[in-house]
This record gives sequence, structure tokens and C-alpha cells, in this order.
Amino acid sequence: MARIVMKFGGTSVADIARIRNAARFVRREAEAGHSVIVVVSAMAGETNRLVALCDEAGRPAPALDARGVEYDAVVSSGEQVTSGLLALVMQNQGFRARSWQGWQIPLETDLAHGKARIADIKAEALTEAIDAGEIAVVAGFQGIAPDGRVATLGRGGSDTTAVALAAAVGAERCDIYTDVDGVYTTDPRIHKLARRIDKISFEEMLEMASVGAKVLQTRSVELAMAYKVRVRVLSSFDAPDAPGPGTLICDEEEIVEKKIVSGITPSHDEAKISLLAVQDEPGRAARIFTLLADANINVDMIVQSPSRAPGRANISFTIPEADLDRAVTLLNDAKESLGFSMLQSDRNVVKVSVIGVGMKSHAGVAATMFKTLAERGINIQNISTSEIKISVLIDAQYTELAVRALHQAYGLDRISGAA
Amino acid sequence: MARIVMKFGGTSVADIARIRNAARFVRREAEAGHSVIVVVSAMAGETNRLVALCDEAGRPAPALDARGVEYDAVVSSGEQVTSGLLALVMQNQGFRARSWQGWQIPLETDLAHGKARIADIKAEALTEAIDAGEIAVVAGFQGIAPDGRVATLGRGGSDTTAVALAAAVGAERCDIYTDVDGVYTTDPRIHKLARRIDKISFEEMLEMASVGAKVLQTRSVELAMAYKVRVRVLSSFDAPDAPGPGTLICDEEEIVEKKIVSGITPSHDEAKISLLAVQDEPGRAARIFTLLADANINVDMIVQSPSRAPGRANISFTIPEADLDRAVTLLNDAKESLGFSMLQSDRNVVKVSVIGVGMKSHAGVAATMFKTLAERGINIQNISTSEIKISVLIDAQYTELAVRALHQAYGLDRISGAA
Repeated sequence: MARIVMKFGGTSVADIARIRNAARFVRREAEAGHSVIVVVSAMAGETNRLVALCDEAGRPAPALDARGVEYDAVVSSGEQVTSGLLALVMQNQGFRARSWQGWQIPLETDLAHGKARIADIKAEALTEAIDAGEIAVVAGFQGIAPDGRVATLGRGGSDTTAVALAAAVGAERCDIYTDVDGVYTTDPRIHKLARRIDKISFEEMLEMASVGAKVLQTRSVELAMAYKVRVRVLSSFDAPDAPGPGTLICDEEEIVEKKIVSGITPSHDEAKISLLAVQDEPGRAARIFTLLADANINVDMIVQSPSRAPGRANISFTIPEADLDRAVTLLNDAKESLGFSMLQSDRNVVKVSVIGVGMKSHAGVAATMFKTLAERGINIQNISTSEIKISVLIDAQYTELAVRALHQAYGLDRISGAA
Repeated sequence: MARIVMKFGGTSVADIARIRNAARFVRREAEAGHSVIVVVSAMAGETNRLVALCDEAGRPAPALDARGVEYDAVVSSGEQVTSGLLALVMQNQGFRARSWQGWQIPLETDLAHGKARIADIKAEALTEAIDAGEIAVVAGFQGIAPDGRVATLGRGGSDTTAVALAAAVGAERCDIYTDVDGVYTTDPRIHKLARRIDKISFEEMLEMASVGAKVLQTRSVELAMAYKVRVRVLSSFDAPDAPGPGTLICDEEEIVEKKIVSGITPSHDEAKISLLAVQDEPGRAARIFTLLADANINVDMIVQSPSRAPGRANISFTIPEADLDRAVTLLNDAKESLGFSMLQSDRNVVKVSVIGVGMKSHAGVAATMFKTLAERGINIQNISTSEIKISVLIDAQYTELAVRALHQAYGLDRISGAA
């Protein structure tokens, strides 16, 4: 019988009623004869409550707890509680089940508390238990560091736990139960013709996750790609005895009919900064971006254009919106040494990305994008590209219009009447 | 420098403000140069919340989790959170501090999940840490069982954790910070002339705890007595820089001036059952009490008296009030085989106990008690005694009157004007 990993996110285990519902999905797989590992998140809201308590307690001086060990001790308790509760519920339905904390498996991490990476999973005991028919309910998001302390994997870390366990036990697949029934060609709240994608490649999913499709944590997709773990995204709000097909994230080779473009992803978490009349001399741009990199601010979509002032250039780029105030302060404080005359910032922008492995072999994807937007009178401010992605920065007021137009232009619209 | 253990109960760590307050007490001891272990309970209300979640999840069939392992996994998280938060707060004040979970010490228990007993404490790492000047914040109430799972010690188990750790590291004393400033001669809410006791023997404290003075868990006092751990009860609501003296619980030999009677303890958690006209033949009483013992119901204060019906007797006894309904059902169901004609039950009773090691060497303590109550017209229903305790069962309406009269009769009243 195959081993499978099932993961339930916070909204899927928000209270005992939802935990009972999750148990019905687990039951179906167990009764089909599978060896089952279930990975659970903290109950919805619980992690925020625990983080708020830590914040209120205060952040210690780096010399005393630079690694955030105590934060991890507190915050990891959320998943611990859910794992025990789901085990109880499964037992009440007559199943053999037990909870596993990261340190009990053990799931070993590095020392980077609060955002630890998984170093190794000694899955012998866990594998033995599930192959003997016991359902393993694993507290997601955490493991044990070389210092003997609990380490958490960072927000969304339960996805990573699930994929890593699937790789460690050689699971047939890793099912991620969440509050949407799959990955969509674009955000269904923005565009009613968005379609659920049946199969998507790891690479495409990685690009989608990194530009803001919040279905899966980026690291979990990286891990799935590295270990070729087939991941399925499903809704825990579907009927437990007949869940929808969801979206399978798998190797490109498993996808017979490749689409040129798989999805259109708008990301609102962007802000634009323009530095006007920067002295156009070697090393000037490097100093600007080093300053931001040192402050841990990610820069994207850089455009340099000539300024009207002779010997000067305008430099514009995007950064995460959350970092905007900090970046503006940093840059203005260094205005003189960086040598620009004026800083403009803009939160009213959106990054729209077109993603598809088919781009590798098909020319004209970018041309279609630019033409489609131009026809609607939408101005492209900045551009960035990767092998399977083209992103453009536009005025946020055109978000829906751009998404709808591109969705149609690449043939993604749901056929009227289809489910 | 001496090692000391400090324990803070739920109300003393109810929120971050209270945790900061607790930290001030810890700071005082650390700055005095002591090696400090702090044991914490869950934040007030948290254990109840977690127990309610487990209850809602349901109690599994004994075959699947007879030992309550998952209950322990869930409920132990409360103390885990507090330990991390207090460590954070201490670090923020510039101290080196870390949280220790039971499994990290390790504090080893037996397999009796939910009410586990401590089997062994391997305190080497903990001792090394505190002697190197790091404050150890230990999650109370829990350890690790031979099955590799977390086991909790039962309600009030954090007191037991504190005393056991004090014994294991050879602490000079174990300070229990709570919401009262010591052990009193009687309940101050009942009698305003109640006095705080400076020193009380382990034996007396054990009797007081077992008849309902809820300052300390009975098991922790047993443990303190067995390992001669000096325990001090203090209020965390006192000023951290000048706390009151509290009550020292210590060996009888350390108490120079022994009182004949140390305290008067009323217990309302009692109910009386009377079985009328029981056939007075050998083995009849044994069958009654075996029935109750098999149902795990503790019987106390048994009185047998002749019935008016020839060859029959009345048997009356007390049980914990919480078990009354269950006991009544059990007995009535077996009415015919037990051979009684009628069952009467009464919740309106109180057990008043007079406790003092001096009784061992002084006659007349019981006589004083009976005379004092008789003078107030208070009828004694049942009586039980131990070497250092006399308990009487009376009508609950006389509780305050009896306590006041006995308190005065044994010379316990606070001298007017004294603090």
C-alpha cells in the first residue's frame, strides 16, 4: 500500500468541528489502505495570538537570544495542540493514531531559529508506525535544532514539513488541504472566468508562489521540485467522500499537453521607487542597491533611463510594499552620498506576471502581452523576465482589466458552462 | 552561592504584565547571586481552555489511548508557552535565561499519563546552566515518559515539579509564589482574625492540604517531606523588592516553639450518605465500601450505630461531594443485595479539622473541640482522627461560628492591632 502525506492548513483545523471534518478526509485515505502521515498547522488565529504574546514580551537583545529560540518555544505550541486534538478525534473514530512533535520524529533542522531549514529527517520510527497501520499526526512548522531546542521553519512552514516528510518516506504524493480547491489560472476573486488548473509543473508553481499566489509556501515548492514530490492542492471544504480533483503539481514531463501560458498572477505587494537625476557614473547604482540589500530589502524590476539633466540618469525599481517606508528613509538619509536629486515613491502599482513553461519553446509570448495591454491603453512602467515568466508593473487601477485581457489573450478563459 | 527554586502559579503569570512582575522577583534572587530555577504554570485560564478542547474532541476508547497521551500533548503546551515568555522577558532585562521543557531536562516520569509520577530527574545539564549564571525557566506540570511522550503530573503538578527539582539540585529552598501571602491559621475569608503562620511542619501542611487548604498540592508536600525540601509560600502580589516573609514549610525540628494546634480547616467538598436499617451481619459493611472503592470513590468518617429495627444498624459516612450523585445511583442500584431499607444524602455538611503536631504530646485537644462546639449548640455528626488531626462533620450553616469559636479556643486569634 502506498504511503501518502496529507496536510491541513489553519482554516481547515480552525475548531473541533473543522478538525472532525479533516478527520473524515484522513479516514477515507486510511480506509483505502494507505499508510498515512497527516501534517497540521496551528488552529486559525492561534499563531498570531502566540506571536503577539512574544511581541508583547519584547524582543531580547541579540546577544541574549539572537536566534529567537524562545520565540520558537512559544509559537511551536500551536501545531502541537492541533496534532494532539486531531489524534484524539481519529482515536474516537476507532483509528489507531498518535501525534508526533518535530523533536519526537526527529525532524532535524539547522540553527536558524524562526526560519530554520530542514537538515535531516530520521523517519525510521515514523515509517514503521504508519506501515503498521497507525495514523501519524505530525505538528507542522517545527523540528529540533542541533542545540536540542525546538526550531520553527518560518511562516507557512507546515507546507514545507509536509513535502519534506513526503520525500523522506517516499510518499506517492503529498496532498495539501486548504480553503481553495486548487491552483487557478488567475485569482478567481478578480476574474470569474478563472479556471482551476489540473496539472502544473514545479517550475511554474514556483514562479506563481514567488509572485504572490498564496496557495503554497515557496520553499515547499522548491523542496517538492528538488525531490520530485508530487503535490496536490485540494479543498477541505469539499465533501470528504468525494473531494474535487484539485491541482497536481508535478514534473513537467508528467504534463502531456503543455500550455504556453498556465497562469496570470497579479501581485499587490509591490511599491515603486524612482530616483531622479542620479549622477550617471560607474558604481553609483551598485551603492544604491548595496544599501538596500544590507537592510534586507529585495529589489526587483530595475529600469535605468536617461535623465533630462546631462550626465544623469533616472533609476526606478520595485520593492516589497511592506519595506517602502524603511527604504525611503534609508535612501533619503543617504541622498547626498548617493547623488540623486529627488525620490518619488508609488504604492499604487501592481505587478502582473504571465507564467508558463511553454514560453521556453514559444516565441511571441511577450509580444502578445505588450500588444494586449497597449490595446487597452495600459502603460507598462517596468518589466522583468525569467525563462518561464514575464512580469510587468502597471498602475493598480488597471489590475482587473489587465488580468481579464491577458487571460483571454492566452486562451485561459473557462469555457462558458464548464465547471 | 545557593541554588533556589521559585515557582509561579497561573494567576502570577496570567498575562505579560504579571509575567513581568514575576520577573522582578526572579531578578532579585539572581542579583543576590543565587543560581535560580523558575518553574511556571500555564497562564490563568489556559489549562481550562486546553482541557475543554480535549473534551470537545472526545475521550477515546481505552484500547486506543487508555493512557491519555494525546491529552498530555495538548494540555502541556500551556506551561511551554509561559516558560518561553518568561525567558523572553528575563532576556529583555539583560539576563541570560532559557526555557526548559520537561523532555529537555529530562524530567522522567512513569507511564501514568495525565497523573504521572516523577521517576527520575537527570538534572546535570540544568544544574550546569544555572551554576554558570543562566536562569532556567522550567515548564511545570510535565515530564517525559518511558514511551518518549510528554506526560503531565495532574492538576497542581507545577508545585510538584518545583519541589522535585529543588530536591534534585539540592536547593536551599523552594519558593512557591501564589495569590496569597502564606498559609493561614484558618481561611481569612471566613474569619478576619486568621493569622499567617510563620513556620509549619511538613506533616501539618500535608493534613491541611489533604483536607482542602488549597495553597499547595498534596503530592508536592509529600515530596517536600520525603526529601526535606524547605518550601516557602509567598505572594507574587507583594512588592517584588520587599516581599512578605510568607510561610515556611519545614521539618518539625526546625520549629522551636511548637503550637498544640496550628490551624482550623473547614472543607466544603464533603457530602454525607446514611444507609438506614442495614442488616447487621458480618461482611455487609465490607460489601458497601468495596462497591464504592471499585468506583474510585473515597470514603471517610464512617459511623455505625444501632437501628431501631432489631438486628439492623445505620451506617453513615462522607464522600467527596463531586461523587455524590454517582454514589447514590450505585448504592440504590444495589439496594437489595446490600440490604438496607433507605438511603439519605446530605450536601449541607462541612468537615472542620483541627490540625497540630502538638497534639501528639498534649491530651485534651479533642475535649476542647467537643466542649467548644457543644457550648455553641453545634451538633457533631461524624468524627475522624489522625495522630495530628481531629475532624468533625457538622451542619454547614454553623461553619463560620465553629471556625471562629475553635480559632479562639486554641489561642489562634490574631492579637488586635498586629499585622
